[in-house]
Amino acid sequence: MIRSIAGVCRVAAAALALLCVLTATAHPQAAADPLPSWNDGPAKQSILKLVAATTTAGSAEFVAAGDRFATFDQDGTLWVEQPIYTQVEFGLDRVVALAPQHPEWKQVEPFKSVIAGDRAAMAKFTMKDLEKILFATHTGMTTGEFTSIVKDWIAKARDPRWHRPFIELIYQPMLELMQYLRANGYKTYIVTGGGQDFVRAYAEQTYGIPPEQIIGSALDIDLTYNDAGKAILMRPPKLLLNNNFSGKPEDIYLFIGRHPQAAFGNSTGDREMLEYTQAGGKGALMMLVLHDDPAREYAYGPAEGFPASKVGTFTQALYDEAKSKGWNVISMKKDWKRIFSFEK
Amino acid sequence: MIRSIAGVCRVAAAALALLCVLTATAHPQAAADPLPSWNDGPAKQSILKLVAATTTAGSAEFVAAGDRFATFDQDGTLWVEQPIYTQVEFGLDRVVALAPQHPEWKQVEPFKSVIAGDRAAMAKFTMKDLEKILFATHTGMTTGEFTSIVKDWIAKARDPRWHRPFIELIYQPMLELMQYLRANGYKTYIVTGGGQDFVRAYAEQTYGIPPEQIIGSALDIDLTYNDAGKAILMRPPKLLLNNNFSGKPEDIYLFIGRHPQAAFGNSTGDREMLEYTQAGGKGALMMLVLHDDPAREYAYGPAEGFPASKVGTFTQALYDEAKSKGWNVISMKKDWKRIFSFEK
Repeated sequence: MIRSIAGVCRVAAAALALLCVLTATAHPQAAADPLPSWNDGPAKQSILKLVAATTTAGSAEFVAAGDRFATFDQDGTLWVEQPIYTQVEFGLDRVVALAPQHPEWKQVEPFKSVIAGDRAAMAKFTMKDLEKILFATHTGMTTGEFTSIVKDWIAKARDPRWHRPFIELIYQPMLELMQYLRANGYKTYIVTGGGQDFVRAYAEQTYGIPPEQIIGSALDIDLTYNDAGKAILMRPPKLLLNNNFSGKPEDIYLFIGRHPQAAFGNSTGDREMLEYTQAGGKGALMMLVLHDDPAREYAYGPAEGFPASKVGTFTQALYDEAKSKGWNVISMKKDWKRIFSFEK
Repeated sequence: MIRSIAGVCRVAAAALALLCVLTATAHPQAAADPLPSWNDGPAKQSILKLVAATTTAGSAEFVAAGDRFATFDQDGTLWVEQPIYTQVEFGLDRVVALAPQHPEWKQVEPFKSVIAGDRAAMAKFTMKDLEKILFATHTGMTTGEFTSIVKDWIAKARDPRWHRPFIELIYQPMLELMQYLRANGYKTYIVTGGGQDFVRAYAEQTYGIPPEQIIGSALDIDLTYNDAGKAILMRPPKLLLNNNFSGKPEDIYLFIGRHPQAAFGNSTGDREMLEYTQAGGKGALMMLVLHDDPAREYAYGPAEGFPASKVGTFTQALYDEAKSKGWNVISMKKDWKRIFSFEK
């Protein structure tokens, strides 16, 4: 009995799906703009072209639905990375919050400057200093505890320029791009140099991307047992994956096992990910976000007349490689009608 | 225009889905058996109970569709692991195939015995010997080359007892279980001590599980460039993930970021995965496959009157832990009506 009802449902659903596809195909020009925050131009056109080529059966570049992957860097590609990475901001806040439990920090750099709120000293922190802060604030607890701490912080913290939650500083055109790709059978992954567990704590509500589709720098997690004999996972001060530079394609292979058809970045840390994506074959789309809009966001890197930046290293060499290899450079100023959802 | 057609499609699809769900819910007792190769008994009942509890809205153990995960060990849990692991069989065959390029192997163990086909000597190989064979046959090529080699081999090789392709030696009841879980919104993952890339080469055609849902022992892949300047990934003789024992839950966390609701294994290498699954909360299902059917498959481990085995270490201690913690032990003899799809 049910067997036949289930059968009817399946047939009816298939017929409906076919009807909808045929109808949509018959009037493609009438479709609503899937990327309303993008100005018309080569960047937008290259995205529409990728989707048409990879999803049209019979196209030379057709890719089966289960094999469609797009990978996105996060900081500077999906949300604001200036004046400092959000995760570093989190680490600084955590040093202040944890200071009462670490009286010795008052005498020891880099903690001393953070506790004193000495922004001038903090601006001179080396990578080694930042590493000390990250290990002191990101390790030594269970995985569940860390996720709770990040969730609490991200809900309360505000950025210094717009005074909004950091998760509101995501780029509306990139959000539309991810939704458009997903609507066309793509799996969207974040592939970030930032901490995998940090990003996983807010990515689903922010980007609609579940934890298993976040690849990031990751600690070498340790299984142990609590006093009740229950299995728990601890966060040791030991890095397993440094998901930057060549680490990005290596970890994409580790997690996904194949080339993405599209990759999006904004710095030298994304270079190898784009090279690997291009190596996957013709039709692949490689894009870099250029920060050239000081009025609406920031300007740095090779944008004409703007200074290089400690954060977000879009070098001239990367710009030249992009041009020589046919990668697309997205001008925030020219290609994006709207940067943030809260803009009028 | 399209907007409204798309809207109509969406509403019609939603109405159809609702109708189908309501109809199915109204006559649950009439549903076709989703696990026809399972005999009725506590093992089958525990699976049906898990699905009912986690997929029924309002149930205390309800889990949202995107958060439903089930993890499966492979060797001895999804397919035959006797007399030796299939991947070791592959390694031995590769030693023979590669021998002409390595004349020195004729003088050096463990290669010498493999080339001579000395099964008695091979039966005494230590873990160190096997490691040498695996590194010699699994590394030094690109990721694409390795995948091609495995695909070729798996299509041609035959097992020594049934003389069938290894991928036909999967357990039909476990295949039905995976399909049943997927039909109920679960994502099924293989979590194997075997090589991640080895299993990925055939898992989709064999189990319906795509590469990104295979977690296994993995090499520390290296990005480099070929003579044409194209980015390629090489397989170095260096292990990144040893996906056994505590490595299983640690890697589940690395890849998925949360507890599975169900985990399936058959040896001490799966113990920590089951403990971690149980730690996820009530309603979780932990199952171990017991090989107690010498007529239809093999018998080893704590099955009454059968010897322990070098391969597949289901120890008495694991059996006792299962009993004390409420894990389910699947008796191949009693719980499985049919073991292989080729059985009459």
